[in-house]
Amino acid sequence: MFRTFPKKLVPVAVISSLALTTALFGGNSGLVKAAENKAGNAQVKNIIFLIGDGMGTSYTTAYRYMKDDPATPVMEPTEFDKYLVGAQMTYAEDEKQNITDSASAATAMSSGVKTYNNAIAVDNDKSEVETVLERAKKVGKSTGLVATSEITHATPASFGAHDESRKNMDAIADDYYDLRIDGKHSVDVLLGGGLNNFVRKDRNLTEEFKKDGYSYVTSKQELLSDKNDKILGLFAAGGMDKMIDRTDKTPSLEDMTKAAIERLSKNKEGFFLMVEGSQIDWAGHDNDIVAAMSEMEDFEKAFKAAIDFAKKDGNTLVVATADHSTGGLSVGAKEEYNFLVAPIKAAKRTPDFIAAGIAKGASVEETLKKYIDLQLTPEEIASVKKAAETKKQVEIDNAIEAIFDKRSFTGWTTGGHTGEDVNVYAYGPWKERFSGLIDNTHNAEVIFEILGEAKK
Amino acid sequence: MFRTFPKKLVPVAVISSLALTTALFGGNSGLVKAAENKAGNAQVKNIIFLIGDGMGTSYTTAYRYMKDDPATPVMEPTEFDKYLVGAQMTYAEDEKQNITDSASAATAMSSGVKTYNNAIAVDNDKSEVETVLERAKKVGKSTGLVATSEITHATPASFGAHDESRKNMDAIADDYYDLRIDGKHSVDVLLGGGLNNFVRKDRNLTEEFKKDGYSYVTSKQELLSDKNDKILGLFAAGGMDKMIDRTDKTPSLEDMTKAAIERLSKNKEGFFLMVEGSQIDWAGHDNDIVAAMSEMEDFEKAFKAAIDFAKKDGNTLVVATADHSTGGLSVGAKEEYNFLVAPIKAAKRTPDFIAAGIAKGASVEETLKKYIDLQLTPEEIASVKKAAETKKQVEIDNAIEAIFDKRSFTGWTTGGHTGEDVNVYAYGPWKERFSGLIDNTHNAEVIFEILGEAKK
Repeated sequence: MFRTFPKKLVPVAVISSLALTTALFGGNSGLVKAAENKAGNAQVKNIIFLIGDGMGTSYTTAYRYMKDDPATPVMEPTEFDKYLVGAQMTYAEDEKQNITDSASAATAMSSGVKTYNNAIAVDNDKSEVETVLERAKKVGKSTGLVATSEITHATPASFGAHDESRKNMDAIADDYYDLRIDGKHSVDVLLGGGLNNFVRKDRNLTEEFKKDGYSYVTSKQELLSDKNDKILGLFAAGGMDKMIDRTDKTPSLEDMTKAAIERLSKNKEGFFLMVEGSQIDWAGHDNDIVAAMSEMEDFEKAFKAAIDFAKKDGNTLVVATADHSTGGLSVGAKEEYNFLVAPIKAAKRTPDFIAAGIAKGASVEETLKKYIDLQLTPEEIASVKKAAETKKQVEIDNAIEAIFDKRSFTGWTTGGHTGEDVNVYAYGPWKERFSGLIDNTHNAEVIFEILGEAKK
Repeated sequence: MFRTFPKKLVPVAVISSLALTTALFGGNSGLVKAAENKAGNAQVKNIIFLIGDGMGTSYTTAYRYMKDDPATPVMEPTEFDKYLVGAQMTYAEDEKQNITDSASAATAMSSGVKTYNNAIAVDNDKSEVETVLERAKKVGKSTGLVATSEITHATPASFGAHDESRKNMDAIADDYYDLRIDGKHSVDVLLGGGLNNFVRKDRNLTEEFKKDGYSYVTSKQELLSDKNDKILGLFAAGGMDKMIDRTDKTPSLEDMTKAAIERLSKNKEGFFLMVEGSQIDWAGHDNDIVAAMSEMEDFEKAFKAAIDFAKKDGNTLVVATADHSTGGLSVGAKEEYNFLVAPIKAAKRTPDFIAAGIAKGASVEETLKKYIDLQLTPEEIASVKKAAETKKQVEIDNAIEAIFDKRSFTGWTTGGHTGEDVNVYAYGPWKERFSGLIDNTHNAEVIFEILGEAKK
C-alpha cells in the first residue's frame, strides 16, 4: 500500500488495486468465484447490508460473554455467530493514515473504491463515485438508510450522498433530498437521528420531503402508525440515545429496520437497505463497555429482524460486517484471565447518562445507587465524587467507566480506531461470495454484480 | 457456561456441552455438515495442524501491515490470508477463569474436551482423554510434534502427554518416551526446545530414545544431515531463541516442519503432525511487538511449508489456528490512526536480547545503535539509561519495548491472555468442515472423524 501518491494517478491506482486483489488472493477470495455464481444472480431480489460501526472481533466476542447463560455448560451463540463466513480488511487509501475512518470504509463498501479518510462517496481526486444504493435505485429497486447516529453521519452518507468531507452534514442532508435518479428521489426510507441537519435556518428539508409525498415522523409511535411507503424519520436532534438510555418515544434499531423492510419490500423489483448500528463505535471512542454492549444488543436485534425477513422471503441477501474496530477493546485485561459481565449487566444507564445527571448537580451516591445495581466500594464512590468536583461531565463519565472496566477486566488502548480485520456475516443467496478474507471494496463489487447494469 | 460444577458431573456436562453446541449452531456449524462430508473421509491421508500460540486477529492483521509493500496500492496478503475459513471460540471450562490458557485450549483442540486451565489432555476430573495424535498412531499413522518452546510445553504436551498440570514438564517428557500405543512409541518426531526436561539427574531420556532407534540432534546442521525416520531434536535448554535472535545453529520452525514432514510422509498410512509457533504468545505476554512479528514470520514460513507439501500431495489437510489471543494487542493506539511498521522493522534483535547485553554491562548507546536501525532521540536513550541503572534486564527490556510501542502505535492491555475469537485457516480435503464459527473442541471432533476408529 503506498502512502503518498500524485492525485492524478489515483484512478489508475484504484483499478490496478482491484486487479491486484484478484490476482493475489487465490483459492478463497470471493472475486474468483464470480463465474460459478453468475447463475445465482436472479435469486437475489433484496439486499440488506448491515454495518456495526466499530464492531471489531473483540466486540462480537465480548457480547457473546454477555449473552452467556451461567446455568449451561456452553457459551451460548449470538445471532451473528451462525452466519460467520469470514473477515474483511479495512485499511484506507489515505496519504497520512493507514487506519480507516468510517467515511472511507463506508465508501469502500458502498462503491468499491478505496479513498481518503473523511471522503463521502468520492474518490481520492474528490470525484463522485456511484454507490450500490444508487445503482439499486437505477435498476428499479426501492432504497433505504437506517442508523442510530445522525442519518447524515459518515456511514449512511457514503451510501446516499457525495461530499468531500463527512463534516458537511447539512450538505449531506441536502443530497438526500436533491439527488435524483431518473427523476426520482434516490432514498425512499430515511430513519435515524440528525433533525438539526434537516431543519435549519436556510432550509427545512422535512417540509420539502413532505411536499414530495414522504411521511415525516419524529417518534416511535408515529413511525409505527404510519403506513406510507416513503418516509423520513428523525428521532433526535443529533445522534439518538443509546438503547439502554432510551425512552419509549425512541424507536430501536430493530423497530426502524422492521419499518424500513415493511415499506421497501412492497416493491416487486426488490430493495436495497443499509442499516447501521452507529454507536457501537461511539461507545468505543468513549471507552465505555456498558454503552458498547447496549449498542451491540440493539444491532443484534436489527440483524435478527433482517435475517427473519430473509428466511421468510428466500430471495434476500443479508450481509453484516463492521467498518473497523474502535478503542482497542480487549476481552480481559490487566493480567486477569476473566472477562466478568455481571458488573456490566448491573448498569441501568450508560455512564454518560449517569454522569450528565451528576454534572447537573444530582447527588453522586444516590445517582450511582439508582442506576448501578452494584454494591460500590467507598473508594469507587469517592472516585466519582472527586470527578464531580470538576463539574465536568466527561470527567465524571470517565470515573464511572473506570469502575466498570476495573470490575469487568475490560481493556482499551485508544480513543480512536484500530486496524484489525473485522468479521463478515452473510445469509441467503450469494452469501458464499462474501466468504474467506475479503477487502472491504469487495462488498460493493459483489453487490454491483448482483444488481447488474441499469437498463437504458 | 457455568463456572462452578461438582466434579463428578463433569463428564456428563462435557457430553451435553457437545450436544448443545450442535443444537445451537444451525446453518454454518461444521458439526451439522458431518453427513454430507462422510464421502470425503478417504481423501485425507495426512493432517498438519498448526497452532500460532496467542495469535489473535490483531496479530495476523499487524503482520499483514508488516508485509505491506509501500510501493504498491494494495496491502499484500500474508500466506494465511488465502486460507481463512472462519473463527473459533476459545473459552475454557474452568471454575475460576473464563479466559483459557494454552493447556486447556490445546486439550480442547487435541481431544475435543473442554477442561480446566493447566490441564494436559485430562478432563475436569483429571482422567486422561484420548488425543488425535494418539488416535492417529492407533490407526497406523506416523506422528510428530514441533514447537519453538520446550517441546514439553502446554500446547505440544496436550497432544502427546497427559498430566494434571502443565507445570510438570519432566513428567511430560517422560510421557513422550513411556507412553506406548500397541507397543509402539506414540510420537515419532519430536523437535523443539526443552533439553533440560530430557537430560536430568534422575533420567536421561535422550539416551533412552537413542536406544530405541531414534536419532538425537541438537543443532540445525545435525537435523538437516540426519536421515532417520524417528528423531528427537532438542535445540535449546528451555525455549528456543526467537527467529530474529537465532544463530545459524538453530533451526527455524520452517526447518523443523520440513524435517518432520520429510520423515512422517514416508509412512504410506499417512501422518498427523502438530506444529506450534509457540512464542507469538511469549512475545504477547512480554508486550513485545518486535518479538511478536518475528515469531509471526517464523510461523508463517512453517505454515507455507505445510501448504506447499499439501498442494503437491493432494491428500493432506492443513489447519492453522490459535489457542487464544495474548496481551490485548491492538493495531494502532493512543488516538493515532496509524500502525507504523518501519520502527518495528528497524529492530535487528528483540528488546530482550538487547536488554540482556545492557544488563551485563554493555554500553547503552552503542548497544542500541548496534541493534536498532533508528535515529533514537536523546529522551529515548535516556529512558533506557535510566532503566539500566536498575541493572534489571526486565526494566531495560520494558524501556526498549516502550520505544517501539510509541513509535509504531502498538497498544497492549494485559500481560496475560484475552478471550477474543481467533481465526481458522484450512486447506485441503475436509477444509470446509472447519468453516464458519466453531468451538475449539470442534477441531478434534472433525479430526477424530477423519481418522476413524482404530482397527481391533
